[in-house]
Amino acid sequence: LRNGYPEVIYSPGKTLDQIKGIVENMMKRSKGNILASRADRDVFEAIKSVTSDAIYYEAARSVVVKREEYKTTDDYILVVTAGTADIPVAEETAVTATVMGNQVKRLYDVGVAGIHRLLDNVAIINHAKTVIVVAGMEGALASVVGGLCDKPIIAVPTSIGYGANFGGISALLGMLTSCASGIAVVNIDNGFGAACMASKINKL
Amino acid sequence: LRNGYPEVIYSPGKTLDQIKGIVENMMKRSKGNILASRADRDVFEAIKSVTSDAIYYEAARSVVVKREEYKTTDDYILVVTAGTADIPVAEETAVTATVMGNQVKRLYDVGVAGIHRLLDNVAIINHAKTVIVVAGMEGALASVVGGLCDKPIIAVPTSIGYGANFGGISALLGMLTSCASGIAVVNIDNGFGAACMASKINKL
Amino acid sequence: LRNGYPEVIYSPGKTLDQIKGIVENMMKRSKGNILASRADRDVFEAIKSVTSDAIYYEAARSVVVKREEYKTTDDYILVVTAGTADIPVAEETAVTATVMGNQVKRLYDVGVAGIHRLLDNVAIINHAKTVIVVAGMEGALASVVGGLCDKPIIAVPTSIGYGANFGGISALLGMLTSCASGIAVVNIDNGFGAACMASKINKL
Amino acid sequence: LRNGYPEVIYSPGKTLDQIKGIVENMMKRSKGNILASRADRDVFEAIKSVTSDAIYYEAARSVVVKREEYKTTDDYILVVTAGTADIPVAEETAVTATVMGNQVKRLYDVGVAGIHRLLDNVAIINHAKTVIVVAGMEGALASVVGGLCDKPIIAVPTSIGYGANFGGISALLGMLTSCASGIAVVNIDNGFGAACMASKINKL
Amino acid sequence: LRNGYPEVIYSPGKTLDQIKGIVENMMKRSKGNILASRADRDVFEAIKSVTSDAIYYEAARSVVVKREEYKTTDDYILVVTAGTADIPVAEETAVTATVMGNQVKRLYDVGVAGIHRLLDNVAIINHAKTVIVVAGMEGALASVVGGLCDKPIIAVPTSIGYGANFGGISALLGMLTSCASGIAVVNIDNGFGAACMASKINKL
Amino acid sequence: LRNGYPEVIYSPGKTLDQIKGIVENMMKRSKGNILASRADRDVFEAIKSVTSDAIYYEAARSVVVKREEYKTTDDYILVVTAGTADIPVAEETAVTATVMGNQVKRLYDVGVAGIHRLLDNVAIINHAKTVIVVAGMEGALASVVGGLCDKPIIAVPTSIGYGANFGGISALLGMLTSCASGIAVVNIDNGFGAACMASKINKL
Amino acid sequence: LRNGYPEVIYSPGKTLDQIKGIVENMMKRSKGNILASRADRDVFEAIKSVTSDAIYYEAARSVVVKREEYKTTDDYILVVTAGTADIPVAEETAVTATVMGNQVKRLYDVGVAGIHRLLDNVAIINHAKTVIVVAGMEGALASVVGGLCDKPIIAVPTSIGYGANFGGISALLGMLTSCASGIAVVNIDNGFGAACMASKINKL
Amino acid sequence: LRNGYPEVIYSPGKTLDQIKGIVENMMKRSKGNILASRADRDVFEAIKSVTSDAIYYEAARSVVVKREEYKTTDDYILVVTAGTADIPVAEETAVTATVMGNQVKRLYDVGVAGIHRLLDNVAIINHAKTVIVVAGMEGALASVVGGLCDKPIIAVPTSIGYGANFGGISALLGMLTSCASGIAVVNIDNGFGAACMASKINKL
Ligand SMILES: Nc1ncnc2c1ncn2[C@@H]1O[C@H](COP(=O)(O)O)[C@@H](O)[C@H]1O
Ligand SMILES: Nc1ncnc2c1ncn2[C@@H]1O[C@H](COP(=O)(O)O)[C@@H](O)[C@H]1O
Ligand SMILES: Nc1ncnc2c1ncn2[C@@H]1O[C@H](COP(=O)(O)O)[C@@H](O)[C@H]1O
Ligand SMILES: Nc1ncnc2c1ncn2[C@@H]1O[C@H](COP(=O)(O)O)[C@@H](O)[C@H]1O
Ligand SMILES: [Mg+2]
Ligand SMILES: [Mg+2]
Ligand SMILES: [Mg+2]
Ligand SMILES: [Mg+2]
Ligand SMILES: [Mg+2]
Ligand SMILES: [Mg+2]
Ligand SMILES: [Mg+2]
Ligand SMILES: [Mg+2]
Repeated sequence: LRNGYPEVIYSPGKTLDQIKGIVENMMKRSKGNILASRADRDVFEAIKSVTSDAIYYEAARSVVVKREEYKTTDDYILVVTAGTADIPVAEETAVTATVMGNQVKRLYDVGVAGIHRLLDNVAIINHAKTVIVVAGMEGALASVVGGLCDKPIIAVPTSIGYGANFGGISALLGMLTSCASGIAVVNIDNGFGAACMASKINKL
Repeated sequence: LRNGYPEVIYSPGKTLDQIKGIVENMMKRSKGNILASRADRDVFEAIKSVTSDAIYYEAARSVVVKREEYKTTDDYILVVTAGTADIPVAEETAVTATVMGNQVKRLYDVGVAGIHRLLDNVAIINHAKTVIVVAGMEGALASVVGGLCDKPIIAVPTSIGYGANFGGISALLGMLTSCASGIAVVNIDNGFGAACMASKINKL
Repeated sequence: LRNGYPEVIYSPGKTLDQIKGIVENMMKRSKGNILASRADRDVFEAIKSVTSDAIYYEAARSVVVKREEYKTTDDYILVVTAGTADIPVAEETAVTATVMGNQVKRLYDVGVAGIHRLLDNVAIINHAKTVIVVAGMEGALASVVGGLCDKPIIAVPTSIGYGANFGGISALLGMLTSCASGIAVVNIDNGFGAACMASKINKL
Repeated sequence: LRNGYPEVIYSPGKTLDQIKGIVENMMKRSKGNILASRADRDVFEAIKSVTSDAIYYEAARSVVVKREEYKTTDDYILVVTAGTADIPVAEETAVTATVMGNQVKRLYDVGVAGIHRLLDNVAIINHAKTVIVVAGMEGALASVVGGLCDKPIIAVPTSIGYGANFGGISALLGMLTSCASGIAVVNIDNGFGAACMASKINKL
Repeated sequence: LRNGYPEVIYSPGKTLDQIKGIVENMMKRSKGNILASRADRDVFEAIKSVTSDAIYYEAARSVVVKREEYKTTDDYILVVTAGTADIPVAEETAVTATVMGNQVKRLYDVGVAGIHRLLDNVAIINHAKTVIVVAGMEGALASVVGGLCDKPIIAVPTSIGYGANFGGISALLGMLTSCASGIAVVNIDNGFGAACMASKINKL
Repeated sequence: LRNGYPEVIYSPGKTLDQIKGIVENMMKRSKGNILASRADRDVFEAIKSVTSDAIYYEAARSVVVKREEYKTTDDYILVVTAGTADIPVAEETAVTATVMGNQVKRLYDVGVAGIHRLLDNVAIINHAKTVIVVAGMEGALASVVGGLCDKPIIAVPTSIGYGANFGGISALLGMLTSCASGIAVVNIDNGFGAACMASKINKL
Repeated sequence: LRNGYPEVIYSPGKTLDQIKGIVENMMKRSKGNILASRADRDVFEAIKSVTSDAIYYEAARSVVVKREEYKTTDDYILVVTAGTADIPVAEETAVTATVMGNQVKRLYDVGVAGIHRLLDNVAIINHAKTVIVVAGMEGALASVVGGLCDKPIIAVPTSIGYGANFGGISALLGMLTSCASGIAVVNIDNGFGAACMASKINKL
Repeated sequence: LRNGYPEVIYSPGKTLDQIKGIVENMMKRSKGNILASRADRDVFEAIKSVTSDAIYYEAARSVVVKREEYKTTDDYILVVTAGTADIPVAEETAVTATVMGNQVKRLYDVGVAGIHRLLDNVAIINHAKTVIVVAGMEGALASVVGGLCDKPIIAVPTSIGYGANFGGISALLGMLTSCASGIAVVNIDNGFGAACMASKINKL
């Protein structure tokens, strides 16, 4: 497989029949796991009708056709969120990274409006091999984590917010112009992409 | 005077002769102080040639025709900056608020990339009557101060930054969409406007 | 409670079960009032099923679990709107400020296209401790009130408008670039945020 | 001449030699007046070297080759500005309309931050045949004049402002989304275009 | 009535009960006609239940409570469209101008991609007192009409288009930056506003 | 050479020494012509010091090291401009296409504000093999030519304009959303790119 | 017919009755084929009820009233896509070009993330008379094809993508600023327009 | 030092005297190297006057006060550019990473318009520990490298380009929406930030 990832299907814009066909093809072509991302329950049911190995990770909107145990690593990727509304993107990240064979830890709801909850968790942040910060609104959490931690940080802006937030642009611009260094950014709500980058780093 | 402020001249787009004329008129009309904002050294020299009472606050790019002592208050307005490059805007704020008769304190260079310097100063923040946060880049400092402090916070985005910062838009959007509540925002680099708002609050 | 506010739940993006759980938790943790903002009637019914203390302020899209009388103040916050379409945001502001223990007055439908109705009400504007101006379209009301009144003004742009209004951006830019000074701005439709800022000011 | 206007040269992007040539050609082709807009002093000197009939209207940055008296009208076009910084655009408008044979009156520096100066002048506004409102910043003056006056209003946003003003976009959007009706808008700083429209209306 | 217009109700964002109440109030206050704009069939039925004088102009999405004959004028306002998809906005303009007591003529579907149909109609364009050009896509029709006609032109950009049209922004920018002079622009899809401006001009 | 073009140097951002070195290298590598685009007079002098074959096309800001006669074609590419200010971009196009071995004709200053000059030239437009339309402001010329002509049209938006023109964006959006079909667009001011496309088409 | 195309109906915003009427009119006026673009199944049923010659190309969302055989050409137009989600736009292009009498070949799903699949197909690309590249996301495929091929390339950005893709703007900007030359661009998702341009080129 | 980096001075907006003072302070505080980024020759001369250990890396616009040998690593960071104009940003990256103690290799001028030069270098790309892709225009190089290589990729959009490039926005959006996965992005022209991220990864 290209880049050592499992086979991946991006579900939006595909009919259930197309998805079933793609899964069947992939199952013939290799023996590895298959990940369908951005999948609603209908996609899960469709895949389930093709193979009983399908598992649905609802919070992550992800289906895995689990044909072998996930591998894991000694080092862990840490997924951090600012608020509860950021959790679906964070779970997409966490499940994707897990399927790709990484140990993953979660630290949710530590946004900067209550900075002490974040400061209480500095140890788990600094012991990670790489940190993924998932935040909407103004995305300030990436800057604060960037100032506390010397590991590579992948920032994921989310579309959470309203008004002059523009579907995640405020968080995206905030993360790109962050005053902390050693942060790189993926597209808005791109939990999958952050997991790919983190997995590549974690396996170096 | 409207709104209890000193007479104010916004210097850009006026010739030195126009500025001299306006100062002479104002001096005839009242006995109070006069503030010329966004003033370079040439503006200062021009006003100086009209009245020896002119003082130049270089870092604030402000001229004051000081004809009576500034009043002051028991409560103070606190002006906080993220970086050194934000200081010119902060000084415009501080000098304006001072001329308007307020006690002003400064807390500079406490950006979130080095969060502990900020946390060491929580007391001075919480004892202020109102806090003005001046920050460029992603403007995350406003959110963090907003989470630490229960006083009204006026956020001033600055045009400091580069790339996807768009002359201060990244900080402006960050401050408007801040996850902390009790923050209101003025225009980019509008140190003068922040001082007006803070002065109104401080004198309630 | 952080910042002296009641407990607050931002309803969008939460399931009814999650909201019920949060309310039950909050009721155990403290004896104060609870405010659920951006709440439709379903959210109200859900909270009502948990506690008979729930009240629905429909125009404000707000639920209050009222377990103690609202406090009030001698000074009042004035909420001003340009048009009738701005009233839902204004009511969110007014109810939030009331629950936070402030006296609130309303002055609705005094937009600048009929300037005399506004001028007839200058007294109630100038006797307020702080004024919240809620306006969509071009947001000009904030500038005119700013020119008439020497109290701190919090401007709330609304998403009311069409065409080159961009969901409230025209009002937001108008308020940020206002020729009147002593105005600070919150995010589009952010009635809640304006109430937080006004409440902090009103209680100084 | 097309549309009954004098011959017009838009100066930017033309060399002095090109401008001289165009003036000479136009003088051969007709006996009417010639207007060179957006002309700095160099352009004036160049045209002066071709014909002693050239006059320089400095505040309007306009040169007129005046070969016959300007006509005039009984009705007048009123040009209103919010601030002094808007005067160059207003003068371009006023001079252009004058050269096109209209009576023009001026009412400058009546911005909404000091609304009473505007209200004191309602009569001169309502007696005009058409009103041109020239304003930068948030452009609120157009809305207020629109509410006071039943004549056609042409709004000219200017590029005066800073920060989230975007070179006049804040005023442009404000004028386009104005809550007052019977207002039409020309491009930013387009004093010339406003005069053309007003002149067409004034001569109906 | 302010500005000599009929009473007007902008329907969006009002409940049917609110609209009925407003109509009843207006009917008590004066004897003139009433116009409800942006009205769907439900709004019509609601008004119809209050007064049998209600008429529905479906293509214009406008209801008129017609209590007296429309006045008319000798001069006419001409409404021109580029395509059929622009007709709803054009009809809103035409009906509004008619109710305001103007003679209105229509010239539809003369877009510049088939320029000869437009050129065949130059006479009706030049005999109008004022011309309203309604066009979406790139809005080029306004420029071409502007070059053919010496009457005041009011350009109405419509939201017709797709892709890089941005809900009418391409037409709006095209009309604002038109190379023809004597054109003024109203907001996207603002047929009502164009009619107000044209009516003011037509009655001078 | 890739794509059959002469060797090309894009001058901006290169030192004169670098340009001299590149020209010397290219002259060793092949015997064909060399084109340096976006070249000011200094670049010409530098190249001239390396080879006496250098020619400067000033209006096109292009240098050609002419080592063999330009080829030509029976069919011609027609370059059309709206205004005189568009001529530098048009000349870059025309010279580039000429050096690439095409017959080129020019039709300048036929903008839609004076549509008859354009209509008088329909024959030369329709006899071309491909037409390049160069226009700034609102770019309406592309739509009108598109409606008159059945040959492939390449539209070049120019940065000519002011205010809400945004450095050519108004023309770019107008051309992309044109109501005429069979038009394709290149980047703002990209006369070079239009010539490449036209040359490929002309030589089919 | 203008420009040698079949009669075309752009379906969006027309009622089924209007479409039926237009088809009947066109059938009376000429004997050629008719194409209805952006047509859903309802549009097909409506046209089918008028004439049994209607064919539905579902993937292309196009209806053809096929009254004569499509012509064809010896040279072919090649339609290339980056991903499967781009296929609806590509099919609109391919069907449109076919109906216009061109031979069309397809090369789908050769995006740059798997560059070797593209490189394996260089021959079919270079033997085409013109190449249409249909791609969403960042649109990089246009640049890579532009570097491999010396034929005219028409790039069609699609609205496929999410986050900072802005409904196709990322692909549009990428294609306009492409480092490869000899590429021209049509509007987002404008498969029809690309086919018109390609057909004009193919028939030269 | 925070994050294990050398002391860093961001030069823009600091006077030469301020820079000298900061260098002197840093030299007292530690014995490590000091990097002044975005430094022109004047900054170098100023630092040279304070310490003879100053070295100027002109192409990288960087000054190093080299007080100890740079460390290095067995693994290397690869810096790739699309064009020559991207080299200044690439050199800032390369020098910064070198000073931070990393082995750095360079692969310049391998843009996708000439894809074979890139394909000839696949081995050096895949043997790197992490790859930094520096590209302007449409930024397509990041996608192509992302498809060829299974190492973490840091994409740096540059401000190189013109027209609808918007100072690097086209490359930024292209890189964010890339169809290849495992790419993360830093701000426009932020060579320094890319080096920080790569150094953190390289030292894991
Ligand atoms: N209507 C509202 N508009 C904006 N922010 C709000 C609103 N209601 C609540 N909030 C904020 O959201 C926080 C609660 O968010 P959550 O924990 O997600 O329920 C509160 O502390 C407020 O700061
Ligand atoms: N100051 C101005 N602002 C906008 N348009 C102008 C201005 N002055 C002249 N024009 C227009 O430019 C045309 C002349 O352009 P040109 O032929 O390039 O000199 C005139 O016919 C006017 O329509
Ligand atoms: N005036 C121009 N506008 C746009 N692109 C150009 C221009 N001149 C040259 N180019 C492109 O830039 C390439 C040369 O770039 P360089 O190697 O940096 O000199 C050529 O192959 C052309 O594709
Ligand atoms: N070239 C650069 N680009 C972006 N950020 C930089 C650059 N150079 C330094 N920095 C950042 O700026 C900080 C120093 O800022 P200052 O204290 O203002 O000198 C460093 O810690 C870096 O995070
Ligand atoms: Mg929370
Ligand atoms: Mg600092
Ligand atoms: Mg109202
Ligand atoms: Mg003034
Ligand atoms: Mg039509
Ligand atoms: Mg001209
Ligand atoms: Mg695919
Ligand atoms: Mg190169």
